[in-house]
Formats: sequence, structure tokens, C-alpha cells
Amino acid sequence: MIKRIGKQSLMLSDGPAVEGCAAVVGKKEGEGPLGKRFDLISEDSYFGEGSWEKAESHMLRQCFTMACDKAKLPPSELQYILAGDLLNQCVSSAFAMRESKTPYLGLYGACSTMAEGLSLGALLVEGGAASHVCALTGSHFCTAERQYRFPLEYGGQRTPSSQWTVTGAGAVVLGKSGRIRVTHVTHGRIIDAGIKDPNSMGSAMAPAAFDTLRAHFRDTGRSPEDYGAIFTGDLGALGHDILQALFKADGVELGPRYMDCGVLIYDLATQEVNAGGSGCGCCASVLAGHILQAMEDGVWERVLFAATGALMSPTSSQQGESIPGICHAVVLEREG
Amino acid sequence: MIKRIGKQSLMLSDGPAVEGCAAVVGKKEGEGPLGKRFDLISEDSYFGEGSWEKAESHMLRQCFTMACDKAKLPPSELQYILAGDLLNQCVSSAFAMRESKTPYLGLYGACSTMAEGLSLGALLVEGGAASHVCALTGSHFCTAERQYRFPLEYGGQRTPSSQWTVTGAGAVVLGKSGRIRVTHVTHGRIIDAGIKDPNSMGSAMAPAAFDTLRAHFRDTGRSPEDYGAIFTGDLGALGHDILQALFKADGVELGPRYMDCGVLIYDLATQEVNAGGSGCGCCASVLAGHILQAMEDGVWERVLFAATGALMSPTSSQQGESIPGICHAVVLEREG
Repeated sequence: MIKRIGKQSLMLSDGPAVEGCAAVVGKKEGEGPLGKRFDLISEDSYFGEGSWEKAESHMLRQCFTMACDKAKLPPSELQYILAGDLLNQCVSSAFAMRESKTPYLGLYGACSTMAEGLSLGALLVEGGAASHVCALTGSHFCTAERQYRFPLEYGGQRTPSSQWTVTGAGAVVLGKSGRIRVTHVTHGRIIDAGIKDPNSMGSAMAPAAFDTLRAHFRDTGRSPEDYGAIFTGDLGALGHDILQALFKADGVELGPRYMDCGVLIYDLATQEVNAGGSGCGCCASVLAGHILQAMEDGVWERVLFAATGALMSPTSSQQGESIPGICHAVVLEREG
Repeated sequence: MIKRIGKQSLMLSDGPAVEGCAAVVGKKEGEGPLGKRFDLISEDSYFGEGSWEKAESHMLRQCFTMACDKAKLPPSELQYILAGDLLNQCVSSAFAMRESKTPYLGLYGACSTMAEGLSLGALLVEGGAASHVCALTGSHFCTAERQYRFPLEYGGQRTPSSQWTVTGAGAVVLGKSGRIRVTHVTHGRIIDAGIKDPNSMGSAMAPAAFDTLRAHFRDTGRSPEDYGAIFTGDLGALGHDILQALFKADGVELGPRYMDCGVLIYDLATQEVNAGGSGCGCCASVLAGHILQAMEDGVWERVLFAATGALMSPTSSQQGESIPGICHAVVLEREG
């Protein structure tokens, strides 16, 4: 049963379970600190395809297939695929799933897409609309770079606050049986703190993460101590520190249990990614490759997963607009 | 209660009700056959803003506010806004709702967005996740033209099969009280019939409409005669005829009860729109301005609303890809 608690949160009393998940990443992500956690690392940035856009689709399809395999579920038994990405018109997900023969719900939550898909999928299962769903998303450094910033050949300099788009995908199959359950979701509002620098996404998204996490603690009556770990999506080193400072000013210590997927996925000292990772694939691959596995392994019993997104486009930035942020949060809990 | 029927459909036994709706359109749409049905017609394609992208946002915000007003619902009492559009990174919806302070679920279903938002919103209400939600979408001729095709100043010739992107927005507030209810939804799969001509969207989307409507009739055990009217989103004149022919080959006569919003919104003989209207705003404004009003007026008791989308991008077409289509269907029923 779905029960509303407070203004923005829902409690899912049955709690849809993670039946399987998979993470596929690129070479650079494979060389990072979480390298060993991913199901597949592609040495080829083209994934054997003729364009980076097709590569991104290929990666998503691989990831989807692996997640279904690991869930021991024939893809035809899924009732919904919830997917989205960063490409214009979300083509990499649509083309990846074009032969799936499964009802498809396209999402656009920018880098918050994994939490949006996971939460909506959980609500579909909990509400009786589906018995199995798959939440899928990903990003590719080369497609994002040329769409959002510059042609890759240009080799433009990057500001210290900029982040590196993760080449990676994550897929999570939800259903009824499994040890890790989605027990709560808190959906976020759009928060625009007036940041206009598209090379400082962490500062643009941190206020949205603050708003959603604060709403979550308020609605559930919980505090950070109630969680073994709290993850934001891709705030990077700068956004991570801003979020910590915002909570500190509010009298709340997040402490070392708070981590950001964009900080975890690369070695910031040696991999030349400046403030860390970003992109839909950042927290999606860290969730499916690292977080859920660590929960299975008994590292954490209860995790708060808060994916963050920046809802701007190159056009909106060129027209002088600031960057609206959003953050959706999902509670994952391992049964005893 | 949500009950699965068949492979792709859901029955909503309580049936979330339309509490209010609004349609805002541009000058050309105001001059069309449905002109008198819309709540607001803007003579100014800029809607008083400095760019067409900002105009599109402005129109969406106006439409959202009017729908809440007509529902007599303070926007702060909404628990979800489900919105999306055609612009890269769906910026017009995000910027339109940036001050809303309401949890925001971004969708990308191309021109199927109104049915995707309406159906997901109905499931959130029916499943107990929300008491009031708003589904919102729109499109603008000038933003779409320059993003998908050519700079407007170029004045390129248009093929006979091409469609005219509707400048328009539609918003529907769903809740518990109202005479028109969402009783069934059928979510569509991605169908790619191999059409590669981005100037022939109707032919690319008609096979998806066929697939979803056929699934709907199969799952519900209903036939076209069970509906007072059946609407597709924006197949245009060509797609309308293709869908009719596909059903005919299958032994099913859709008959005159079948209409396409892209054919209805313009006078195809005099308004120089070639095969008709298209864009997220096409079926959204026709639904909110015309269909729901006619149902209130007693014209139809039960309507099948099937919005259609083409999940391509200029990049995917430039890379030689065909155009995947999708269609989601929603049953609207008026109480006695």
C-alpha cells in the first residue's frame, strides 16, 4: 500500500524489491576506484557502433539485458520500462528499447532520472499496476560533451568546478521478490538558486538536493543517523561540500555517511575530472554496480539514494537563464 | 483500485476525475475550426517574452494557472506536476514550473506526452500517492521549427506530408471530484516501422497508434463501437488514413467516430498546414479545449484518447536512423 507522509513523501508498506540490476561503464570509469564493481567495462568508447549516440544506445541495451538476466526475468515479462537520458529528445533510451516490445514510459529528469524511474517504477508495482518494471538510464562522455559543450576535437579547457560526464549506464529491475526493498520515496520540487554558470552544476543542484533531503527528513521524522549511507547523484566535490554546508547552517551534520556518486566514481586526484563525475549514468551505474551490491554484502542496511538533475539546456544558458535543479530521493532497505 | 487487464492495459475502478482543464493557443490555432473552444488565444507569438523558448514557457505557465483556477484548486494543493515538451532537455516545462513549489516529474514522450502525463497522474491518484495532480504539456511552432528543421527566416518549402507544429498548451488537473473520469489506460510499446522521412511523421506514428489501440481493444474486450469518439494525437491527414487502412486490413472499421486532433485543429483546405497539426500542444490543447468540454456538454459519454509521439531527434535522422513511434491511450468517461 502507498501511504502519503507529509508534504512530499510516500511510504510503500510492501516495498517493491530489487530483483536484479546491472551497470555497464566505459574505460575511464573502469579505471576508477569502483572499477571492480561494474558488470561490464567497455574498452571501446564506440561500443562497436558507428557513432557515439549509437554507442550510448548500445550500452543502455547491454545494461538492460544484463539486469534482466541477473533478475532471471525474460524481458517479455516486464510490464514497464521507465527510461531517459541526456540526449536531445532522449534518443539513446528510445532507440535502445525500440525492439523491447514492452510498454515504455519516457522520462526526462536530467541526471535525476535513475531516482525518478526507480520511484515511479516502485509506485507502479506497489499500486498494483505492474509486477515487474525496469528503471534504466545512462550517459556517454562523448555525446554529452559535443551536445552540451564543444566538439571533442576542440579540446577546450575545463574550469576547476566542471564535472566529467560519466560513460555508464545502470538498470534496476523491480518486482516482488528480493532482499532489498524500496520503502519510501520523496519527490523533489524544482529549485533555482540563480546559478548561471553551466560549468558549475554542483552548485546549481546542491540547493535542490538540500530541499528534497530536508523534506524527506521532515516528512519521515528521520535524521541522517537513521541511514547507513546517504548518496547524492552527481554534485561533485564542490556540490558535496555546498550541501554539507547548507545542512550545517541548518544545524544538521550529515557526517561521513554522506557521499556523492560523482566523487566516488573517479579518483579526483589522478583522473583529471576536476570536480568529479556527472550525467545520468553517474549515479545510475554507482547505484546498480556499487551501492546495491554493498547492501547485499551487508555493508549498509538502509540507504538514502538522492539523484540530482540540472534542468537546463545549452539554449536556456545562451539566453541568460539560470539553472533550475531537481532531486528525487528513494529509500532502499535490506531485509534482516 | 488499479487492476491489470490483459498485457498492456489497466482498469481504474475509482477513476480519477478531471477537476479542471485549460487550453492556451496561438493566433493561427485561434483562427482554426476549434478557435472558439480554447480558453486563451495569444495574438503575440512571443507571449510578451524576449525569445520563443521563453514564450513557450510563458504559455505553459498561463495554461497551468488557468487549469488550477478552473479546478478551484490553489496550485499549492497539487501533489505532482507531470510535464514535458519537445525542446531539448524539456526546458520549456521545467522553466514554466520552476516557481511552482510542487513535486515535479519530467516526462519525455514527444507528442504523446499528454496521454503519458494524464495516465501516470491518474495512476498516482488511483494508487493513493496523490489527491491532486496536473498533467501539462505544449509546443510552439517557432521553437520547434528552428530546433527540428530550419531557421524560420529561411522560409524552406514544406512537403505535402509535413505537419505544422501547433502553438498551444493543455493542462488537466485530476483529483477525486468531477463528472469525467479516467477509467482505463493502455500504455504503448515503441514501434518502428522503418520510416525514415522526418517530414512524414504521420506515417511513422500510425503503426504505433495501431499497436496500442489494437492492444486496448484486445485487453478490454471492447471494439470501436464502444466509444462515442476515438482521437489520435497528431497523425495528420496522412497518418489518419493509414491508421484507418491498418484497422480495415485487420477487419475493423473505425468509422467516422475516429478523428485525429491534428486534422481537427486547422482548416486543412485554407490554413496551409499541409497534412495538419503536430506537436505536444496539438492533442493537449484539443483535449483540454475541445474534447473534455464536448464531453461535459453531453456530446460523447465515453472517449478513447490516444496521443502519438515520434521518438526521433534531428541527430538520429541525420545518422540515418528510422523513426520509432509510441502511443499511449486513456479512456475518459462521463458519469450519468
